[in-house]
Parts: sequence; C-alpha cells; structure tokens
Amino acid sequence: MSKRLVVIGGVAGGTSAAAKAKRTNKEWEIRIFEKGPYVSYGGCGLPYFVGKEIEKKEDLIVRWPHQFEEQGIRVSVNSEVKSVDTSKGEVEVFHADDGTTERYGYDSLVIATGAKPFVPPIPGVDLDGVYVLRTPLDGEAIRKRLEKGIKEAVVVGGGFIGVEMCEALLNWGVKVTMIELMDQILPPMDADIASLVAERLTKAGVEIIISSGVSAFEGDGSLERVIAGDLTIPAQLAVLAIGVRPNVELAKDAGVALGPTGAIAANERMETNIDGVFTAGDCAEAIHLVTGDPVYIPLGTTANKMGRVAGTNAVEGRATFKGVLGTSIIKALDLGVAMTGLTEKECEKKKIAYKVVKIKGRDRAHYYPGSHPITVKLVYRSDDGRLVGGQIVSHWTAAKRIDAIATAIYAGLTVEDFGRQDFAYSPPFSPVWDPMLTAANRAVK
Amino acid sequence: MSKRLVVIGGVAGGTSAAAKAKRTNKEWEIRIFEKGPYVSYGGCGLPYFVGKEIEKKEDLIVRWPHQFEEQGIRVSVNSEVKSVDTSKGEVEVFHADDGTTERYGYDSLVIATGAKPFVPPIPGVDLDGVYVLRTPLDGEAIRKRLEKGIKEAVVVGGGFIGVEMCEALLNWGVKVTMIELMDQILPPMDADIASLVAERLTKAGVEIIISSGVSAFEGDGSLERVIAGDLTIPAQLAVLAIGVRPNVELAKDAGVALGPTGAIAANERMETNIDGVFTAGDCAEAIHLVTGDPVYIPLGTTANKMGRVAGTNAVEGRATFKGVLGTSIIKALDLGVAMTGLTEKECEKKKIAYKVVKIKGRDRAHYYPGSHPITVKLVYRSDDGRLVGGQIVSHWTAAKRIDAIATAIYAGLTVEDFGRQDFAYSPPFSPVWDPMLTAANRAVK
Repeated sequence: MSKRLVVIGGVAGGTSAAAKAKRTNKEWEIRIFEKGPYVSYGGCGLPYFVGKEIEKKEDLIVRWPHQFEEQGIRVSVNSEVKSVDTSKGEVEVFHADDGTTERYGYDSLVIATGAKPFVPPIPGVDLDGVYVLRTPLDGEAIRKRLEKGIKEAVVVGGGFIGVEMCEALLNWGVKVTMIELMDQILPPMDADIASLVAERLTKAGVEIIISSGVSAFEGDGSLERVIAGDLTIPAQLAVLAIGVRPNVELAKDAGVALGPTGAIAANERMETNIDGVFTAGDCAEAIHLVTGDPVYIPLGTTANKMGRVAGTNAVEGRATFKGVLGTSIIKALDLGVAMTGLTEKECEKKKIAYKVVKIKGRDRAHYYPGSHPITVKLVYRSDDGRLVGGQIVSHWTAAKRIDAIATAIYAGLTVEDFGRQDFAYSPPFSPVWDPMLTAANRAVK
Repeated sequence: MSKRLVVIGGVAGGTSAAAKAKRTNKEWEIRIFEKGPYVSYGGCGLPYFVGKEIEKKEDLIVRWPHQFEEQGIRVSVNSEVKSVDTSKGEVEVFHADDGTTERYGYDSLVIATGAKPFVPPIPGVDLDGVYVLRTPLDGEAIRKRLEKGIKEAVVVGGGFIGVEMCEALLNWGVKVTMIELMDQILPPMDADIASLVAERLTKAGVEIIISSGVSAFEGDGSLERVIAGDLTIPAQLAVLAIGVRPNVELAKDAGVALGPTGAIAANERMETNIDGVFTAGDCAEAIHLVTGDPVYIPLGTTANKMGRVAGTNAVEGRATFKGVLGTSIIKALDLGVAMTGLTEKECEKKKIAYKVVKIKGRDRAHYYPGSHPITVKLVYRSDDGRLVGGQIVSHWTAAKRIDAIATAIYAGLTVEDFGRQDFAYSPPFSPVWDPMLTAANRAVK
C-alpha cells in the first residue's frame, strides 16, 4: 500500500505542500482537507475583488479541486479536521456536506491551518455590516453590501490590508475613515515612511484617526455608527483589519509545539517537534534572516515557500527553508510601498546599533515623461555597515525594486558594496544613479 | 597655490569626476575642458528627444556650466585638448570660440574623452540625411529632418540604440527598416531573447533585415535609398547605430596605455599607467565582475561610477571601482528588455560550463488587471550553480527587476540561493512566485 500524506488546510501553504509533494514523490497518496468551500485562492487579491478591479471572486482561484484531482491529489472541501492522533497517525475529519465523520490514517502530516482575523470583543462587533476580510466569502459579503449602496465606511486597523481596503472602498465612492490604535498607520514600517502613505490617503479623502481604538459598533439591527474615543463616526460598513492570529488550536491539542511567537515552531525542514508532522503557511513561525529570531510574519509568498519545503520533506525529499526578511509590498492608490528586513524601530527594539539613510529621488530620468518621486530608506549596521533593511515609497510599480535590497541583505552586503551594484539604467526606467544607489552612496559619504 | 585637476571631457564620466573631486577636496582647483558646446547631458535620452517624448534638447542637460561654476568648477566648452604633456603635467587646449590656444598645467588629470560612433567607409555615408546619434546636436539634426517630413527611414544596426531609434521613428509615422549585420538584433543578448523584441518591432511595422550590411547610401544631394545586398530600400533618412569606439587618440599620444579592448586601461582606482593620470567613462575599459577580464561596455551608469572614483582619487581621496556586469535595459515600445552578466553566447566564448533556465510568467497576479507576460532567463555555472547572467523581456517597467539578478551575481549567489529570495509580493506587483524565483526554482528542479 502507498504511503499517505495528509494536508490540513487547502490555501497557500497547504496546496503548495500537496502539489510539491506529488511532484517530488509520485508513490505517495496525497489528500487535502479544507474546512471552507474553496481551496487554492489568492487571498491577497481579495481587496481588489472588493474594489471591483477583479470582477468575480472565482477569478481569484489559482487551482480548482478538479485540477488537483487530475494531478492525483484528492481534495475534500467543507471538511474540517477535528483532531489529530499523532501516535496512531490518524486525523478525524468532519465533512459538513453530508454530516459524516471520517478517520483517516497518514504517514506524514502537513498542518497548514492558516490564520484567522483577530476580532476583538468590542460591543456590537457582531452587528450586521461589520466584516473581516479573509476568505472569498468575506469578500463577497462586503461587495454585496457595497452594491446595495453605502455612504460611509470605517476601516479598523491601518496595516497593509487596511490600506488596501481604503483604496477598495474609495473605488465605490464611499467616504472612508481609518482608525489605527498605534500612533502611525502601517505599523510594521517606520513612521516617516508611513506618513508619506498617510498623506496620500488623506489627499484622496480618507479620514485617518491614529492613536485611537473602536470602543463600540452601534446600530439598530445593522451598523449605523462607530464609536472611537470621543468620536461618533457614521458608517454603514466597517472592516476589521487589525491583524491575524495563527490557527494553532488543532496543532496544540495534538501536542505540536508552538514557538515564542505563538505560531507553530518548525525546523529548517518545516518539521515540527513531532516526527512526520510538518507545517507551512500562516499558522507557522519563521526565522528572521537578519536577527536569527523566530518571527510571525504571515505572508502569501512565505506560505508558498514553506509549503514547497514541507511538501518535499513530507514525502521523503530534501529541502530547507532558511527564513524570511518580511519583504512586503502594497499598492496604495497610485503609490507603491515596500519594505524588507529590519526597520529603525525593530533595530531599536533588538538593540542593534544601526545607521539610516533616506533619500528622495526620481524613478525615471528627470526629463523622461512620467517620472515620479521615490523615497528610499536604507538601514544598516553601525559596526560593519551591513544592510539590514530597506523601505521604499514610490509611484506604484517602482517599489518592486525593493527586491534588489532584499537580495543584498540576504547576501550580507554592506551598504558600501550595495552602492557599487551595476543596476540597469535607461531614461524610461531610472535616473543614471538609481535611487537605491544614491541612498547607498549617501550613506557611505 | 592650490593643486589643479584637469578633466578632459564634460559629459558623464568627466562631470562626475569633477563634481566628486570638488566634494572630496575643496582645496583643489578643478577645470573641465569640453570639445563640444554642451556639458553634462543625458546622452541616453537622445532617442526620446528624437521621438518627441522630450520636447527640447535642453531638457536633457543635467547641469549647466553656470551650475558647475557655482560649485567652484571652471568649465570651458568648445575647448579641445589637443595634446597632453605628462612629463610637464600640462595640456594644450584649443578654444574654438576665440581661436586661441592655451597651455594649462595640472597636478592630476582625468581623461574622459568618451566615445565616437563608428562610421564605416560606405559609399554615400557623408550624404545629407545620413546621421549618427551621439550628441544633442546630432539629435537636433535628426529631429529637424523629421519635422520637414520623411516617409521612410533606415536604422543601420540593431543594437540598443538602434532599437530605441526604431521606436523614435515610429512616433513620427515613418516606415522603418532596420538592418543588422549579425544574424539577430540586440547582438549583446541571446538570440532567443532578442527574437521576442524582433517580433514586437515587426508587429509594429518595422522591417527587420538581419545578416546583411549596407553597401551604399545613394541619392542626389541627399539620401534617397539605402542599398543592402540585393535590396534597395527607399529612405530619406538613415541613422548609423552600429556601435561606438573609444576616443583614445589623445591618451595614446600622451603615452597612456590602452588595454586589450582598445580602450584606456586603468586599475581599481581608475588610474592609468601614468601616475596622476586617471580615466573614466566611454573611453575606458572595465573589469567584468564574473570573468575578471577587461571588457569594453560603454554605458552611462558605468561612466558615472568610474567618474566618481577617478575624481575622488585624483584629489587625494580613496575610492575603488570594482567592475561591471554590463547590466543594460532598454524600452522597445511597450516592452522592457534587460540583461546583466554573461549570456549563453559569452559563456560559450569563454568556455565556461553553464546551464540555462528560461520561463515565461506574468509580471502581476494572473487575476490582476494589466498583468502581462514576462520572460526570465538565468544563466548559471554547471559546476557550482553560481548565477552568472540574466535576461528579461517583459512589459516595460517590469524589466527593472534585473537589478535583483545583478545583485545576486555580484554577491556570488547560486541559483538555488537565488530561488530562496524573499521578494515582494502583492497582486498588483507580482504573482506569488515572482517569475525570477520561478526560473531559479525550475533550475534547481
């Protein structure tokens, strides 16, 4: 009889693991159990579905169950794994479609249970009109509400998804208020960089309230207003975007160890403390490539990478996942905003002696049409000059240059060496000194 | 008395050297002699001036002479250095504006005489209507001709500037024929990559003739037709874009040693064989960072980098120029085309055992509006897997991702390590697997 791999969770981490496992070792039987109705969707695309830039939520599906089946991977949707018996190597699954419970044995297990949006116990949080945005169904619910007609909306949380939701709501001509508990939006970034984004959103009509939390959602049957401090904000729709928590209950109950971040801990092979039990995606922590510390930075790219590694090792292949730099990018209207590695704040928190350089340049030659401002910030170690972080705010696509900074950090380049890079130049693409080089050379000076 | 730095040539390499020297050591007197009427112009922008995307040729000026003067750098235009006496430390300069000749002493010298377009001795090459494109005056002459009305044009040479000129001429509604001696356009790139660009140009109406050279330019007083093999191509305008040659006569006459490429040889400090005589820009060769060989790849970015280093060392500062990867990028209509490091062809020539991987992906998430195809090719060593080259053809700005590949090559990363990079993902910027990572992972598989 073939050996069996069970994958719990069918979004980014889980489907990557399953697909990679099948490619690695065709001898194994592979089965995915997904609690929800959809597998393999691009969750990061949901704000664009809400914002009408993507027509149908089905457009977000990367692969349909039948495509997995054709590859020889069995997929069960609406199928929640209720418990894992690691001593027997068995999962207990509840199939919601027919109300049956199944016990299914495995030789290897990948736990890819993902994360869930944090929903604080605020009065009225269950009111009709208050949403989270995690699954296609969430996106559909918000969009249906918008189609019915909404005048005012509140985005709770000024992080990446919060900013993306502002843009989506502005597309509907809705008056948007964003409420952020911290004293800046985009809390993972440095305040000076985040303020450039806040300015842009404000200019587009978004009301940004920082250092403030929601104390109540109020309304008669459905949401009518949001209370934040002394403020009463009329709103018929609110989106909670205040971060996610890893779904680790199942793993914890099965004896799988969590790390210091509260997410599932794994080694380089993405194997947990229990032999044959692997993990991947938004339920797992990762090593930060600069600090060496475990971090919880749930991102689609990381989930996919972890999935490949977990899937490979789960079927007797060999692969390692070295860690993350937390490289992130978002579109904020016509701006691109990106970060990688450590911010100033993080260096302070970690007591890493650092220096910082920030320049404002252009993304194209000054004389070339459509040249736009770009701000590049580099963070590097005071002792040896090694780059540890970068942040960019630019016109849309130009922020993708952050990848070159990420590569330099990964490779351990100093800011001086980074200033020596032979970057591509031609007027429609860059000034003769790419702004990243200008920043690096300013640092050296 | 202050020490004196003389810079011969006032475009990219020379002005970079002068400006950096002044910032490095304010004690030195600095003087630039420029043969032509303009200093510090963005030569790479000329095709866009010809193509009407840039209105005035003056828009291409990066800094005017008075701006140098304000910084304390004396600039003499229309001033050709006729000879250098390195034993005395003196240059002889002819000032065309008043017909005088001046002798001027120096303590350090930077030779930044640039390059000149190669003009083959083809019959009729001097005919009115046959142009090169090197200076603002060249650009102005071509544009004036186009303003008078031209039906057909020939671009001789299918390299970077040739392709850019095609686009510029198409902007005028001119029928364009491109003639290339080699069996592919974009000879520095691999044929499979260049063919994607050729397809696009052909689709836009450019007639591309490869493996053919011009045997004559014909016309009565001004150009009427171009003869290439058996073909007679009607044309009222032709642009020679068949490469440049370093301007080294002055240096050679002064006893400055040339390298194997025929350009001026220099060490890491950009100092030539003669003490106190430095060089920078399109007249100088550079070390290739992959092969360690001297190469002649004249590019604006390289000229600027060399200039900074030459300028620093010329006034008793310290800086080094490590070399180049030949990273280049051009816009070809709506395409971006980029390369860095070695191509397959170059590996073959150099007898480097290599492998290659090429993938076609998307520049954004498949479901995000405005997602376009992108082709990424990576070249890596068979023995240790180290990346040695990359080429990209994509929708316009996406080709700038080549910088991440350049950084990886500089840092000596293997293709496997490159596949581990934490690149920025969000649907408006990239698929979850950036195509560069997809390529690297395909290589590893």
